[in-house]
Amino acid sequence: MSVNKINEDLAKERRKCNFDIQELTYIIDGGKHKTEQRRLIEENVLKTGAHKDLVPDECLSLKERYENAVKKSLAYSDLVKNEIAAFTGIESYGTPILRRLADAFFVDISPMLLHFGMFVPTIIGQCTPEQQAKWLLPAINLEIYGAYAQTELGHGTFIRGLETTATYDPSTEEFILHSPTLTAYKWWIGGLGKTANHCIVVAQLYTQGKCYGVHTFIVQIRDLETHEPLPGVKVGEIGPKLGSNTADNGFLGFNNYRIPRDHMLMKNAQVLKDGTYKKLANAKLTYGTMVFVRVTLVSDSAFNLAKAATIAVRYSAVRRQSEAKPGAPESQVLDYPTQQHKLFICISTALAMQLTANWLWVTFSKYLNEMRKGNVDNLPELHALSSCLKSVSTSDASFLIEQCRFACGGHGYMTSSRLPQIYGFVVATRTYEGDYTVLLLQTARFLVKAWELAESGVDVSPTVSYLNRVNKHKELVWDNSMEGLIRSFEVVAEGKISHCVKNIREKMKTGMCYDEAWLLTTNQLVPAAEAHCRAVLLKVYHQEAKRLTANSSVNIQKVIDQLVQLYIIFWSLEKTGDLLRYTPISEKDIDELQNRYDDLLASIRPNAVGLVDAFDIRDEILQSTLGAYDGRVYERLMEEALKTPLNAESVNSSFHKYLKRESKL
Amino acid sequence: MSVNKINEDLAKERRKCNFDIQELTYIIDGGKHKTEQRRLIEENVLKTGAHKDLVPDECLSLKERYENAVKKSLAYSDLVKNEIAAFTGIESYGTPILRRLADAFFVDISPMLLHFGMFVPTIIGQCTPEQQAKWLLPAINLEIYGAYAQTELGHGTFIRGLETTATYDPSTEEFILHSPTLTAYKWWIGGLGKTANHCIVVAQLYTQGKCYGVHTFIVQIRDLETHEPLPGVKVGEIGPKLGSNTADNGFLGFNNYRIPRDHMLMKNAQVLKDGTYKKLANAKLTYGTMVFVRVTLVSDSAFNLAKAATIAVRYSAVRRQSEAKPGAPESQVLDYPTQQHKLFICISTALAMQLTANWLWVTFSKYLNEMRKGNVDNLPELHALSSCLKSVSTSDASFLIEQCRFACGGHGYMTSSRLPQIYGFVVATRTYEGDYTVLLLQTARFLVKAWELAESGVDVSPTVSYLNRVNKHKELVWDNSMEGLIRSFEVVAEGKISHCVKNIREKMKTGMCYDEAWLLTTNQLVPAAEAHCRAVLLKVYHQEAKRLTANSSVNIQKVIDQLVQLYIIFWSLEKTGDLLRYTPISEKDIDELQNRYDDLLASIRPNAVGLVDAFDIRDEILQSTLGAYDGRVYERLMEEALKTPLNAESVNSSFHKYLKRESKL
Repeated sequence: MSVNKINEDLAKERRKCNFDIQELTYIIDGGKHKTEQRRLIEENVLKTGAHKDLVPDECLSLKERYENAVKKSLAYSDLVKNEIAAFTGIESYGTPILRRLADAFFVDISPMLLHFGMFVPTIIGQCTPEQQAKWLLPAINLEIYGAYAQTELGHGTFIRGLETTATYDPSTEEFILHSPTLTAYKWWIGGLGKTANHCIVVAQLYTQGKCYGVHTFIVQIRDLETHEPLPGVKVGEIGPKLGSNTADNGFLGFNNYRIPRDHMLMKNAQVLKDGTYKKLANAKLTYGTMVFVRVTLVSDSAFNLAKAATIAVRYSAVRRQSEAKPGAPESQVLDYPTQQHKLFICISTALAMQLTANWLWVTFSKYLNEMRKGNVDNLPELHALSSCLKSVSTSDASFLIEQCRFACGGHGYMTSSRLPQIYGFVVATRTYEGDYTVLLLQTARFLVKAWELAESGVDVSPTVSYLNRVNKHKELVWDNSMEGLIRSFEVVAEGKISHCVKNIREKMKTGMCYDEAWLLTTNQLVPAAEAHCRAVLLKVYHQEAKRLTANSSVNIQKVIDQLVQLYIIFWSLEKTGDLLRYTPISEKDIDELQNRYDDLLASIRPNAVGLVDAFDIRDEILQSTLGAYDGRVYERLMEEALKTPLNAESVNSSFHKYLKRESKL
Repeated sequence: MSVNKINEDLAKERRKCNFDIQELTYIIDGGKHKTEQRRLIEENVLKTGAHKDLVPDECLSLKERYENAVKKSLAYSDLVKNEIAAFTGIESYGTPILRRLADAFFVDISPMLLHFGMFVPTIIGQCTPEQQAKWLLPAINLEIYGAYAQTELGHGTFIRGLETTATYDPSTEEFILHSPTLTAYKWWIGGLGKTANHCIVVAQLYTQGKCYGVHTFIVQIRDLETHEPLPGVKVGEIGPKLGSNTADNGFLGFNNYRIPRDHMLMKNAQVLKDGTYKKLANAKLTYGTMVFVRVTLVSDSAFNLAKAATIAVRYSAVRRQSEAKPGAPESQVLDYPTQQHKLFICISTALAMQLTANWLWVTFSKYLNEMRKGNVDNLPELHALSSCLKSVSTSDASFLIEQCRFACGGHGYMTSSRLPQIYGFVVATRTYEGDYTVLLLQTARFLVKAWELAESGVDVSPTVSYLNRVNKHKELVWDNSMEGLIRSFEVVAEGKISHCVKNIREKMKTGMCYDEAWLLTTNQLVPAAEAHCRAVLLKVYHQEAKRLTANSSVNIQKVIDQLVQLYIIFWSLEKTGDLLRYTPISEKDIDELQNRYDDLLASIRPNAVGLVDAFDIRDEILQSTLGAYDGRVYERLMEEALKTPLNAESVNSSFHKYLKRESKL
């Protein structure tokens, strides 16, 4: 993987590893064939060297960073266009392979990510065949650059509150787009600030004097020849952010800007020439895109956490600090149980999230097929499931990535460690595409309804079927097997949901309306939805890990089983309060779980570096001074420092301008 | 405070506030006189306009940001030099007033912060009078610029592991400074990269063939005339970081670099001309600086959390989102209980930390006086106390600042909100000056010793005196008064420490040595030390708030009491698992606490904006589009966006260079 000499401590760690690393990589990727395909694409693209920077991107001005990102976006798009055609076909624009490879090119994300990630899929999903014929190919060939403009300066989560209007004028057969207020300006739109010349715009549709709610329109915003904004369009960049500074997020306002009638995306609804509004297909199918994006975010969380764990575990094998016993040589920090406690859960969580994302994708595809046949019964469950998994995965990943950074001490604060950028990228996903709290409350709506159905004896859908079980018989015996612990988490979830329902009912008895009682219970509903999600995660991880390693070698089965146990016991110890409240766990049981947890840390320790090696993340993608395969931590830190423009001159001009003083010394 | 029209929602909030905001400001500042003094200094400095930038600092290249910071550092130092002389005298270089005012000038910290914060204090604390006479005045007058170089590329927490050597050569009466390896390079040294021409260097002292451990030396590293590094000195900037990018952190290596003998700081130890080593004063007094820095970090955490709370609460009063009931107008997000749950604890914690920092400072000063009289008995307690308070305050503040950012949704991700930079600054303090985990383990050492003393019947020091109490009689009745809850936290702390001791003893019975048993218990020792710290925080906050409001108006007493109760009950609900394990709390008690918590949120709601107004943080210091006094959130977001260089031109050069394509559209 690297031609440099491997750090001796890391080399030793790899000799200690007792399982076949390659075999585990195949499992994580979903098969040997997929690993080989990924490696080939990575090799073909990276051997061109098009991803390399001479100066660390973080040293540049924002303007320079944007220009660098545009240059690299086109290089990257050109490079992977052939790969996509040859390997996976057009529907895989969003495959993990290409997303992870993009990390070699961009600090955060490319200004064209949402062109491929939202603009093209919306054309595919919401256009009529005629509209597709017009826009799809130019978009794919990058003859036009598109963005997806929904969020406004004053409106995010609550889409019904959007202010941008699209008013139909039958006399000219045009829509008039307008931003009536400052808060109506589109804001946060990736790729829009300086790059896009087209845009999908979500606006309130008015025709024949009536508002029909939000609909989508495709809008040209810049001249294709000069790139100047068209008259009636005000567009620009929104300014610096915590991360994603190469994403070219933009704002957009319209001043009575006219577009032809057929620029409304008309697959699901139409406005006829005379202004008549017609609803067509079941708009519920557009849920598909939303669920797809959420699966992607769970999978991205997993990959980014795997990156952070790789960096922190390798660094912890190289870094030495303090004497474990007085007079002993300084220990590898990976030998400290406190460090193992911080890091091994990250390895296990990355795997848990990846297996859950894959499982969710399969579940989703199955349901989608049923939906296409007209059966939308499973939609509420899918919505509830993807909502809570998106919330909890992005939140857990953010927290654990930051924990990896803490585990790297001061050097984790250097951007050359890459940990700050990984955090900046992932923590944004906790907010966008549905805020953490808002989505958990949507799951809670589903759970409360399901609880009430179960109460009345109705069998509820698979992921909440435990509500049928625990409503029927309270479990009285503590069972500390993995299956028993998972069931305990279901008992906790049921207990919390039940508690919420009781609260709501009691409040309503005092004369409160349901909405008010719900609102005043939200601080208990959020943890109830989280508890449900924990139960799902534990169960799916346990079941998928078993399934995927059924034919694996014994040592792989063993180490994966250790990771799954670690995950389940970690969460049991984290949620001791819940277990004490809702299950018959005893003080002695808790002590026993703690002992098993400590034993698991010790068992995983010799395989830790092997486990992160199995994530198989190339140095070019990882881009970390602390986490490279060869472990040349200190050399790389110094090499990166020497690349900064401040170090290109021994004396900075500010000395002569400001600092120099007469001294009598 | 502002000449702009106040947002109507904010104006309404201020009319609702039922207490005298100014009265609370006086309490927070420590008296009317202190508020007035602070306001006068702020007004005098800020009216000059020297803090203003035309372009947001985050848009610039790192080199431009450094140059801007040097320029402003000198302007700031010149402006406050007179203020310091007139108001507070030289020992207040580190007063909160000047630190908070610096926030108007710097995104993170000035390249000269550590000149004043560490270089000057070390000269004062560790030099002989002759040495002080030589260096102190030039340093204060900025004729020389200094840094404090302790941390090395390969060595942080474990100071005994430092590699830089200072070997005495009696033939020339010089010390030879040398960096034997790459990992011996000084690294992370604030102000060193391009600014400092002098440096305090911590190195292993060798004389007469023997190593005497780490000592401090003052070293000139750059030519005063040309600013070029002197021969034998390799110095530079370490590169981009998560935050503090204007702090000019540097690296420094020596190649057999010679300095005169009297450049060793000789107050506590000397090397005579012939090379004889002489230990002088009690080096334990240098603990003083360490404790002082930690108090400063607790106080800084409080102030930065107050900033974040101010931003998030004001924004939440202006921001409207979703219908609480179908068809209702969009609600102020501050009306959602989930938002109140996120934010009110931040207001209360900022106050708790500030009162605790003040209390710690008073405790420290008292102990320091005793230490000067030769009584060092209280040193272990002071060390344990400042260690855990530093860890828990910086960690809680980081977490809660990020929670404030989450509560601001997408706009919290904009750097113009200021929340990302506040987080970046505070989260670094969780690591430097003693990492979170390492410091809690030092507190745990003290706690285990104290527990064993209490077990043997000895009365232990005040902050752990609960160990005497709970060791004598187990509490059996749940008491949900504030005093009862505080005692419960002490019972929990005792229970956890006791559990650790039991664990260690059991491990030793199997033949393990103490160090090994300790190491394998560290994952329980860290939470035990945290539990102790929680008990201290709750008790000190409760007691100090009562004391400071004893003569206040009724409504101030009431709102402060609500904040204290909120804090105590918040932590009781967070730590339900611990309370269930170690106290007789029942399911019914927990429900009752939850109800009281919900009631407190509702009671505090009308005063929320008034409470953050009472922190009295000027707009120039807050520097936030979301948090300004006038609530012109959306206007400011747009104004800031329009200042970025990318928006200075309607078409970026990258269009013609890369993007432009032939299109058939």
